[in-house]
Amino acid sequence: MSSAALDSVLAQVDRDLNLSLERLYQLLRIRSISTDPAFAAECQRAADWLVAELNGLGFAAAARTTPGHPVVVAHGPEQAGPHVLFYAHYDVQPVDPLHLWHSDPFKPELKTDANGRKTIVARGASDDKGQMMTFIEACRAWKAATGSLPVRVSLMLEGEEESGGKNLPPFMEANRNELAAADIALVCDTDMWDRQTPSITTMLRGLVGEEIEITCANKDLHSGMFGNAARNPNQVLAEIIASLRAPDGSVTLPGFYDDVAEISPELKAQWQGLGFDEAAFLDEAGLSLPAGEQGRSVLEMIWARPTCEINGLSGGYTGDGFKTVIPSKASAKISFRLVSGMQPDKIRAAFRKHVEDRIPADCSVKFTAHGGSPAITVPSDGTHLRQALAGLSGEWNKPAVITGSGGSIPVAGDFKKILGLDTLLIGFAHVDDQIHSPNEKYDLESFHRGIRSWVRVLAAFAG
Amino acid sequence: MSSAALDSVLAQVDRDLNLSLERLYQLLRIRSISTDPAFAAECQRAADWLVAELNGLGFAAAARTTPGHPVVVAHGPEQAGPHVLFYAHYDVQPVDPLHLWHSDPFKPELKTDANGRKTIVARGASDDKGQMMTFIEACRAWKAATGSLPVRVSLMLEGEEESGGKNLPPFMEANRNELAAADIALVCDTDMWDRQTPSITTMLRGLVGEEIEITCANKDLHSGMFGNAARNPNQVLAEIIASLRAPDGSVTLPGFYDDVAEISPELKAQWQGLGFDEAAFLDEAGLSLPAGEQGRSVLEMIWARPTCEINGLSGGYTGDGFKTVIPSKASAKISFRLVSGMQPDKIRAAFRKHVEDRIPADCSVKFTAHGGSPAITVPSDGTHLRQALAGLSGEWNKPAVITGSGGSIPVAGDFKKILGLDTLLIGFAHVDDQIHSPNEKYDLESFHRGIRSWVRVLAAFAG
Repeated sequence: MSSAALDSVLAQVDRDLNLSLERLYQLLRIRSISTDPAFAAECQRAADWLVAELNGLGFAAAARTTPGHPVVVAHGPEQAGPHVLFYAHYDVQPVDPLHLWHSDPFKPELKTDANGRKTIVARGASDDKGQMMTFIEACRAWKAATGSLPVRVSLMLEGEEESGGKNLPPFMEANRNELAAADIALVCDTDMWDRQTPSITTMLRGLVGEEIEITCANKDLHSGMFGNAARNPNQVLAEIIASLRAPDGSVTLPGFYDDVAEISPELKAQWQGLGFDEAAFLDEAGLSLPAGEQGRSVLEMIWARPTCEINGLSGGYTGDGFKTVIPSKASAKISFRLVSGMQPDKIRAAFRKHVEDRIPADCSVKFTAHGGSPAITVPSDGTHLRQALAGLSGEWNKPAVITGSGGSIPVAGDFKKILGLDTLLIGFAHVDDQIHSPNEKYDLESFHRGIRSWVRVLAAFAG
Repeated sequence: MSSAALDSVLAQVDRDLNLSLERLYQLLRIRSISTDPAFAAECQRAADWLVAELNGLGFAAAARTTPGHPVVVAHGPEQAGPHVLFYAHYDVQPVDPLHLWHSDPFKPELKTDANGRKTIVARGASDDKGQMMTFIEACRAWKAATGSLPVRVSLMLEGEEESGGKNLPPFMEANRNELAAADIALVCDTDMWDRQTPSITTMLRGLVGEEIEITCANKDLHSGMFGNAARNPNQVLAEIIASLRAPDGSVTLPGFYDDVAEISPELKAQWQGLGFDEAAFLDEAGLSLPAGEQGRSVLEMIWARPTCEINGLSGGYTGDGFKTVIPSKASAKISFRLVSGMQPDKIRAAFRKHVEDRIPADCSVKFTAHGGSPAITVPSDGTHLRQALAGLSGEWNKPAVITGSGGSIPVAGDFKKILGLDTLLIGFAHVDDQIHSPNEKYDLESFHRGIRSWVRVLAAFAG
């Protein structure tokens, strides 16, 4: 890859920015809210729009049917070098509450925020249409400036990420040979480290979701008539939940930490160098004290240590006022975040045994599994990772950093499990983008330099 | 009181039973659902119907206005001997789910149940129109057979017992002099001990209701992004609730049992003689092991020992499926049942301190009081109690028993607190009456012998 060729592509990006923006606006005007059946035709329209754009760029693109909204799959021409499979999603969240929006969520506008930054305001501007279009516009610039892409590119663009995404894994299974031909997956749906620092997320925690329902009496009882004599499932549930955490913040399940490795000294040092402001992070949520295992940094807690969180609690009367009931049932939704090495099935089994051991003789428990996926770790010494870091660092004039994420990005797990592909998570969003909320925005800088970043990353992959 | 006079009144009851039943049906046809504003006119109609009936019996009766539904107050002519104040309520519970009723809840029918017993089926048949009419029909029989009542009788009939009853205490306060002229209050809203054994309830547990809301973060957080670092209020709440009970079933609040006296050996012996079947009582609820303080009988647990019950638990996502949220808030509704000697304010304060001591530095708690009333105990050696027991024993040919009740009957507390009156709780309902549920019924025997019982109790008061 000659430096002159790269410069000409970057110049092309700069020159055509307004056209790129207009294309993004076209896509943002499509109301592709995937969770609401009333917008099914709009989801189809977004998929069709993408197919037309990609075919116009020389891809062989099609909107492929699923039991839900279509998956857009596009393949560029065969060529030497690595073959990348790019993922993003064209569906968006609902817009309620509409009255909190300052402009129509489906009429994108360029606004200047309180800090003087230009932002693209619309539902999906950041999550994920804006991010998706950074990659497509990078491909367009390569095509326009040089007549071809520097590596072979395929795209898989989902229409159900915001509504559970349950049709994507079977689609990937059904098209495994076609999709697994790629060498590496790229996902554009994450944040930069901060406004100056690009990042690639290489560690994602896994998840085990469990729902437990404890039944004591066979019906709701009057707490006057039965209180003291009848076992109260709210009390049983509370005691079980309380038993899951030790006073030092650690999780008490036997064997919970058996397969958890300490992070390497190198990674620890790099994370320390990130300048992460623990106090500011917690303060944003109105908190000041980290609640997890004492003696570890907040970044370790959320990126490299497993946790157990009670996501939902429910039992008895929860409406206004008061009702003196001893309910028959009480339930909780509980999730475990897993780190590299932990096996979802083993954690689920340890949890269920822990609960069963604490169910009084008179009572019973029903378990419902809500998903289980292992943590994902991209080897930190891989070629593609190194190349992508170099491309990003070139654009932002600052070394790109490797980060973890406390959350799970299911598609990254599916790329590994179904297609055998590692995933590089590269995105240009910011924490203040208001995704899923009113007045969602994407910085114009994220869009512009995001396109430029992909231009450079593709060049880096070409070597 | 001559035996001949009493016999003539009882004969009058037997002769007029079908007319008494028809009058009850008239009242049962009125849809006096107090909690639903759509039925306000029906509540007024029920009050007016009662006023007309009572005026017809020689009472000076009126439907007295309150901020809610009227209170019917009626006074019989002055005369020598004790003056009783009878309480019942004319309002009823809603009827949902309507499809579970086998006949129209407001078209009373006489049905024969699986055991061959005749039952009056309608909403309010037992709770409390049927019970209320046993007393009114007893007055009618006295009037018809002898021209007068054997003692002075006043009635106070409430229209909001099923919807909180918050207007009755101020009404009693405002009319204290008028109502406190009575010597003893009678309440007909309770069960017999069993189908053969009449009972008078003399011990009622008190109640302290508390709602706590724990706030940690200032907004709901993503459990991937924050899990481990952010304090989870569901966990905090569970730990607090778990800390309220010791493994032996006792309540852990400091000082909780300080003012709790052991019941007398005499009462203990009488309760043992009741033949209460603990196993059957628990089995009815699908349970087999009493959950309260070990080493005490179930009757002691529910009548004579205080308890702490978690009536409601709520935090985070409780709908279908799963949401990986760390909520900002979690809350619980908690009630304490108190026994004689315990002070509601003291228990509330001990509870609040116990909770506050366990709130992590970053979090806060908001308390909402939901009522507080002390336990009620009627002295077991009083004249009225002895007379009423004798009257009941005469009707049922079996000694009437003195029982406790685990629940609270607020009006009994108000009679004591506001009017200085002891209350005798005498009722003829049965546990299988399906009160508050579809297909509510009142045994025809409860109605018939309930009327006869009141005839005898009034005679006994006359001495």
